[in-house]
Amino acid sequence: MESLVLDYTLAMDDALGEKQGVSRYILEALRIPLQDARDHLLARRREGTLAWTELPRKDVRGVLEYAERVQGRFENLVVLGIGGSALGTTALATALLHPYHNLLPASGRAQRPRLFVLDNVDPDQTQDLFSHLDVRKTLVNVVSKSGTTAETMAAYLIMRDLLEDQVGRGRLAEHLVFTTDPEGGVLRKIGRAEGIQMFDIPAGVGGRFSVLSPVGLLPAALVGIDVERLLAGARFMDEWITETDLVYNPAYVYAALQFLEHTRYHRDIAVMMPYSARLRDVADWFRQLWAESLGKAVDRRGRTVHAGTTPVKALGATDQHSQVQLYAEGPDDKFFTFIKVGEFGYDLTIPDAHPGAEELSYLAGQSMGGLLNAEQRATAWALARRGRPSVTIELPRVDEAGLGQLLYLFEAATAVMGELYDIDAFDQPGVELGKQATYALMGRPGFEELATEIRAEVPERTPYRIERK
Amino acid sequence: MESLVLDYTLAMDDALGEKQGVSRYILEALRIPLQDARDHLLARRREGTLAWTELPRKDVRGVLEYAERVQGRFENLVVLGIGGSALGTTALATALLHPYHNLLPASGRAQRPRLFVLDNVDPDQTQDLFSHLDVRKTLVNVVSKSGTTAETMAAYLIMRDLLEDQVGRGRLAEHLVFTTDPEGGVLRKIGRAEGIQMFDIPAGVGGRFSVLSPVGLLPAALVGIDVERLLAGARFMDEWITETDLVYNPAYVYAALQFLEHTRYHRDIAVMMPYSARLRDVADWFRQLWAESLGKAVDRRGRTVHAGTTPVKALGATDQHSQVQLYAEGPDDKFFTFIKVGEFGYDLTIPDAHPGAEELSYLAGQSMGGLLNAEQRATAWALARRGRPSVTIELPRVDEAGLGQLLYLFEAATAVMGELYDIDAFDQPGVELGKQATYALMGRPGFEELATEIRAEVPERTPYRIERK
Repeated sequence: MESLVLDYTLAMDDALGEKQGVSRYILEALRIPLQDARDHLLARRREGTLAWTELPRKDVRGVLEYAERVQGRFENLVVLGIGGSALGTTALATALLHPYHNLLPASGRAQRPRLFVLDNVDPDQTQDLFSHLDVRKTLVNVVSKSGTTAETMAAYLIMRDLLEDQVGRGRLAEHLVFTTDPEGGVLRKIGRAEGIQMFDIPAGVGGRFSVLSPVGLLPAALVGIDVERLLAGARFMDEWITETDLVYNPAYVYAALQFLEHTRYHRDIAVMMPYSARLRDVADWFRQLWAESLGKAVDRRGRTVHAGTTPVKALGATDQHSQVQLYAEGPDDKFFTFIKVGEFGYDLTIPDAHPGAEELSYLAGQSMGGLLNAEQRATAWALARRGRPSVTIELPRVDEAGLGQLLYLFEAATAVMGELYDIDAFDQPGVELGKQATYALMGRPGFEELATEIRAEVPERTPYRIERK
Repeated sequence: MESLVLDYTLAMDDALGEKQGVSRYILEALRIPLQDARDHLLARRREGTLAWTELPRKDVRGVLEYAERVQGRFENLVVLGIGGSALGTTALATALLHPYHNLLPASGRAQRPRLFVLDNVDPDQTQDLFSHLDVRKTLVNVVSKSGTTAETMAAYLIMRDLLEDQVGRGRLAEHLVFTTDPEGGVLRKIGRAEGIQMFDIPAGVGGRFSVLSPVGLLPAALVGIDVERLLAGARFMDEWITETDLVYNPAYVYAALQFLEHTRYHRDIAVMMPYSARLRDVADWFRQLWAESLGKAVDRRGRTVHAGTTPVKALGATDQHSQVQLYAEGPDDKFFTFIKVGEFGYDLTIPDAHPGAEELSYLAGQSMGGLLNAEQRATAWALARRGRPSVTIELPRVDEAGLGQLLYLFEAATAVMGELYDIDAFDQPGVELGKQATYALMGRPGFEELATEIRAEVPERTPYRIERK
């Protein structure tokens, strides 16, 4: 398997100067904390408390057999999930399916279903989707670890009603497949009672680390993505990270740089900017992984730290015409991760359609992929010229093997970051209050007091409200 | 026309406490700089050097007539543009078209074309789009002010070749429409020579302020958006902003808060989080407007300032399961703008499909829109509880009149911010170096020295490159 490349030349002082670039010595000084991080993570692996690291070696026959069994039966696959139950699937689909997959005729999709990931509770979007689909030809994959996620369950209840109406109670189960906790939760209960096909989210695998579990693999297999090759890519990366010395270890070097940029150089925004339209939703998936894992108020010893850098997704070359002005001239508070692709699926040659036009002649005969990669290099260089650091990850090509490497690299680097910050990278206590407030405002029994409190604190009429009469 | 509402209760000290919230006195202290900003902007308007403020009152008959003339003739509309030549169109389309517009049969689209905005030079995406389309049924709108934008022109040259091949040289012009500078540039020259229909980007209107010019209006009219109503919304907002005292003026109050949050409270990230799937690309459009206008190295007196906050787009409720953990517990470096919708196009009632399941019973009988808006309120409240400030913009509904108000409000607030920072909000000098570097790497004559310099500074082989052999 051809490996990805991590190039951090433009993060170093050789390129950026002493003040803005990282020196070898500073990097070397992180060796002890990095070694501690590694020892701790390897110990947790041995204990079996890092369940996501086991995913690349899990048996996926169940997923493959189910996908084969229903192959050709459905025109549409609707995934109902939010956050980690949706972002990995979307990242895989955008990267590995035809960009206009849903517009292709069935033959152009090898009889695979169209894919709709509904990850919100927007009534307009939901209504427009559900009324557009022929639900009799639709398979609905409900993805929720707890089985109680308000957004997912609201959409499920509406969809279920529609299905019952159209296909009848008796055939309902054929149109549903649940991905949920192996034991608990209301989805598991419903699934058992009604004989619905179910897949497990293995115990200890949180949503944002679940893309290589049935959460991501089932929809991927259903639309024809080679999930075994994806896992092979992840295994390849896992071996690399496990076997290699820190200095040549992409997860540890990447985490070390991110950590230094934040804590030593006070760059608190982590921009992820792939130069590939196919990878744009990998940046969105990364955004959750990074933000939810590292954005923590207290460390493991209970000290208030407010850790975490803010992930920002961008897209090259598009965002050169939107964000690069700020990146170049605004505050020096960003560390850039570029992703570039070695070999595109196609390459297009730009024709010399206007031989008279001098302003265009430099483009004639060049490849479009060459232009895109030149723009990446030019942008990284121009930022470095202003002392702004970046790393570039070079993916040989956008395929299953490459994606497996890339996603697993980011998961591993995030876990290392958690160790360096000394925080728990695998919980999310900060979302609880908002959830309870939603329950309160929705009138869920037991939350009446909180509802009163919120209504008093966020009154409907305040002096700080302006409108035009 | 029903106005939007700006509610900034949760930015104030009443809600957040003295340390984290803005007091009336601090806001009042900004009155003089705000009045100066207003005087200056009004003076520039009178001079005619704020051309974007004139757009809501421009005659758009040309656009409407053209749209009517070609109505029904094309199956596809392809917009080739990048940055400000694409983001406004995408924002309008996402907000105002059926979310699955391109999947609908022609009858479901009222015979309007499908819309494809190609805003990158990704060869895979370009090839997959161009090979998917029947170019004989395709209208191509090339949008570039200068007429030399590398990405747009590369796509145009490839598309032109394809068109010439499929429809013949003689009928080429019928399939092309250019939106470009009224005088200069190579697109104007080609258009004149070949009799191609052209629309003007008025002099002085920069890309990021061009959504209400033919840049955004032409594609909008072609797909059936009511552009007159859109302009009416913008005019309504323009009058509100021009006529109203600072204290009740949404653009000045919004800018004042953004400015204070940055300069006094050191919150340097501006999160834009609509609770409406339809508005997600408004957040993306805003991202360019804000970043490119305000991210500036020097102020108008030439002092180094590195101004600008970093805009981040998010989407409610989706990103509650991705970003809110960081927003709540990570660094207190963000100011949130929520957008909520008063009335949805549809509202769906959540059925009581599992009467036995207590965990779900609070959802039964509720509306999905009610759930979404409860989540917005809950999230804003939970963030305020942690001292994190927000404003909420309430849009009566997602329609042309509302969009016109919203887009124009953000444009005006951005201009006010430019005054408060004392920078030029209408240039973008920071992207020049990267453009030249691209020319150099693409071998454009005249850039040979720069190419040598870049190749020396970013060598192909460096010690800071790791891969697995």
